[in-house]
Amino acid sequence: MATSANPQPEGLKRFQEMTRQLKQYEELLGVVYWDMRTGAPRKGVELRSEAVGTLSAETFRIATSTEMGELLDRLSQPDAFASLGEIDRKLVEETRKDYDRNRKLPPELYREYVVLTSQSESAWEEAKANSDFPGFLPYLERIIDYNRQFIDLWGVKTTPYDTLLDMYEPGTTTAELDRLFGELRGRLVPLAEAIAAQGDRPDTTFLEGTFDVAAQKRFSLFILKQMGYDFEAGRLDESVHPFATGLNPGDVRITTRYLLDDITSALFGTIHEGGHALYEQNIKAELAGTPLSGGTSMGIHESQSRLWENMIGRSRAFWERYFPELQRHFPGQLDTVTAEAFYRGINVVEPSLIRIEADELTYNLHIMIRYEIEKMLFNEGLNPRDLQEVWNEKYKGALGVAPSNAGEGVLQDVHWSGGSFGYFPSYSLGNMYAAQMMNTAQRKLPDLNAQIAEGRLLPLKEWLTGEVYQFGKLLKPAEIIQRISGESLRSSYLCDYLEGKYREIYRL
Amino acid sequence: MATSANPQPEGLKRFQEMTRQLKQYEELLGVVYWDMRTGAPRKGVELRSEAVGTLSAETFRIATSTEMGELLDRLSQPDAFASLGEIDRKLVEETRKDYDRNRKLPPELYREYVVLTSQSESAWEEAKANSDFPGFLPYLERIIDYNRQFIDLWGVKTTPYDTLLDMYEPGTTTAELDRLFGELRGRLVPLAEAIAAQGDRPDTTFLEGTFDVAAQKRFSLFILKQMGYDFEAGRLDESVHPFATGLNPGDVRITTRYLLDDITSALFGTIHEGGHALYEQNIKAELAGTPLSGGTSMGIHESQSRLWENMIGRSRAFWERYFPELQRHFPGQLDTVTAEAFYRGINVVEPSLIRIEADELTYNLHIMIRYEIEKMLFNEGLNPRDLQEVWNEKYKGALGVAPSNAGEGVLQDVHWSGGSFGYFPSYSLGNMYAAQMMNTAQRKLPDLNAQIAEGRLLPLKEWLTGEVYQFGKLLKPAEIIQRISGESLRSSYLCDYLEGKYREIYRL
Repeated sequence: MATSANPQPEGLKRFQEMTRQLKQYEELLGVVYWDMRTGAPRKGVELRSEAVGTLSAETFRIATSTEMGELLDRLSQPDAFASLGEIDRKLVEETRKDYDRNRKLPPELYREYVVLTSQSESAWEEAKANSDFPGFLPYLERIIDYNRQFIDLWGVKTTPYDTLLDMYEPGTTTAELDRLFGELRGRLVPLAEAIAAQGDRPDTTFLEGTFDVAAQKRFSLFILKQMGYDFEAGRLDESVHPFATGLNPGDVRITTRYLLDDITSALFGTIHEGGHALYEQNIKAELAGTPLSGGTSMGIHESQSRLWENMIGRSRAFWERYFPELQRHFPGQLDTVTAEAFYRGINVVEPSLIRIEADELTYNLHIMIRYEIEKMLFNEGLNPRDLQEVWNEKYKGALGVAPSNAGEGVLQDVHWSGGSFGYFPSYSLGNMYAAQMMNTAQRKLPDLNAQIAEGRLLPLKEWLTGEVYQFGKLLKPAEIIQRISGESLRSSYLCDYLEGKYREIYRL
Repeated sequence: MATSANPQPEGLKRFQEMTRQLKQYEELLGVVYWDMRTGAPRKGVELRSEAVGTLSAETFRIATSTEMGELLDRLSQPDAFASLGEIDRKLVEETRKDYDRNRKLPPELYREYVVLTSQSESAWEEAKANSDFPGFLPYLERIIDYNRQFIDLWGVKTTPYDTLLDMYEPGTTTAELDRLFGELRGRLVPLAEAIAAQGDRPDTTFLEGTFDVAAQKRFSLFILKQMGYDFEAGRLDESVHPFATGLNPGDVRITTRYLLDDITSALFGTIHEGGHALYEQNIKAELAGTPLSGGTSMGIHESQSRLWENMIGRSRAFWERYFPELQRHFPGQLDTVTAEAFYRGINVVEPSLIRIEADELTYNLHIMIRYEIEKMLFNEGLNPRDLQEVWNEKYKGALGVAPSNAGEGVLQDVHWSGGSFGYFPSYSLGNMYAAQMMNTAQRKLPDLNAQIAEGRLLPLKEWLTGEVYQFGKLLKPAEIIQRISGESLRSSYLCDYLEGKYREIYRL
């Protein structure tokens, strides 16, 4: 590349150095986090958590230091900013945003919150196992209280909940989500009702039984390879709660969970996390080592996990190619099942209690329940002690099912225990982004379905790399979707897709 | 515990905080190092190394900061020092030592050296594989040159090489090593000659063959459990070069390497690293999180790995109990072998080229060769380009064997590629410490051999915990051995032990 003719503005080198240092500390903490979730010995965790706390606090100190503030001020001056290249401009903008947000938090308050959330994740695991909502309530109350304080310190955007939303999906508002989710509800609820009324439930008995874990693992590795996941830049391990973590573009790890009596858990979990991983592995090299080397929002990130899990992994074309492979991996167990029967079986639609086990259609209703509850918490002053009751009522109302205990109800998700309020909408945003992207992909790659049916998944991966993955945080979510589809995010693509898919399966 | 009546001296709290931070960063870097050696994806290593370099440099900066110097000065004042508890006094002394040493290095020089040694370990691996001494020479020359500069900056202790020795075995000198190694040579060389002259080599043909790796792994886990290794505070993994790493007392990991055609490699490697691990797992809880929570010297550390590997793991009593277990793990393969024949087979003495494959007796000759060469490098100005020739001559002279290439000669060990000059004597010091400790142990635990023959290894582990492990860095190596045996380190215990063992095996 040619060297810029402009002289480098003063402070740029130091600014790049500091932001790289922040990214490097995040990477080291990421390795330690991965290790804690995949087999670190139990007795070492307490001291390890303290060490993590210390480096996190140091990261926060650097990110909010006076020096960082001065560098940002200097580089934001019109002349200096104008002389920056595209990447450095974006780096200044993104860092400024984090800086402004974090500077508003007293470091001591932040440190207390880090300690609280790291403790509460273990408390949640125990409470969930024991369905003990009162046992977890003190943690929830404190976490929610901290978040309410943070919102006040950060400043309310239209509504308090908007302030939280902006962390996961920059630019998104409750107004927009109310509209999008309203549209979704308007078309998806009648569809779910029509399916329920139809009465002809696809057979799923062949999904019951015992599936050799070693064979499940081999099949997971096989599918990841087919998707173009690079095993020289990643690895697959096991953990209780599956996750993907992009430590750097050359080290993007995923985990899954093998259940002996459920073949679908590891299978779709692996494809889901594999979608996240393809995103992180294919961010362009120029961004490596900078804070721009990561997904641009949680909505776009979830669009990739859910696109691969559902729009590819639960498609008829996919199983045309891969069902015989699945049969080969479990000899004798699926011999009497056809690819078509398998396709219909893994796409059964029915109301359920557990989000992560929900079908592609009702999944969005699970998200809307959480969205409404979070709005009540932060915009309407809902008392955390009423969460369980509200949860149960909402499930009854929207899905017609009632949890018999907190473990399958209000305690089912890890998110709130880590303080992630405002995250849940990302999943349905992801579904909408994914459907809108796939609509374009079908036009740009006209033989896409045929490719998938032949097991040629790489052209789609390459297309997504060109349109989404490579940019990291260089483009905002709205810019990504506009660039791909020529429009802003719409609910109709997801509704069209789901209606098309399920009317066909259920012969409506 | 009662609170001290003295008021806390000013600065103590901050000093404790800073030293804990240093230990915490070391722990986090340790996790990352372990990860890099046990399966981190290849493509992520370059950025990971940079991140490690940044946090290492930050650790160095804190350890050598003006603030640290001022705190040390303040806490070293007689009144302040007198008011400290035992642990804090030791902490001040140890930190002062590191501070004084590190302050003498220009940070830029240190950073260059960290980068150089992290690069040279990969260069060494490649050069070793290709037996390419000229290819690795430029690295060696630079590393040796840096070490010569460091010695000048640190200040020469009697001889330049003494300055390096002191890092691994505080208080040890070339004068003492010359004497100890001279004594060892005087008794061990005649012993080795008598064995060679005797001509009746124990049978080892049953060690040849193919040994199922999964069974090797199960047996390794079984033996570690027998030794009292705590799997809730550690784990066993695989790596090319086996190692143990004490991240904190609740997380002490070991690695081994399984060779399909060599059952002894993983077996004795596991016991060796297990010995290191028992030390680190059993340091007393009061020291946890401080820089005193670690082995007091490399000599004492190696005393534990070599005590367990050789004095226990290659003893007759041990195999009385465990040979039937070994037979059970490899059904049909060792049926015609007796425990006695196995014991003799794993204790064959013969000159060899590779240190880590050497028997217990000639092993010390391998160490002495390295010790002499290192003295020549730092005290006599040996030119690194002559290293290979000197190496080959020394092997010819001391062991009567000549390497046919650099891979099995001067390039066989990892140590020099990491800049660890002065480390090698630790192994023979470890052998001597171990023999002296075991001499006391035999008197204090009168039925020790019977216990071992019954598979009761825990009383020995408990005794070593009480005498060695618990103290971490609270006691110096000389204090440890004096406390146990009532004398300073002597060569005679090792010579007596080896003479007794081998005269019996070889019927001399």
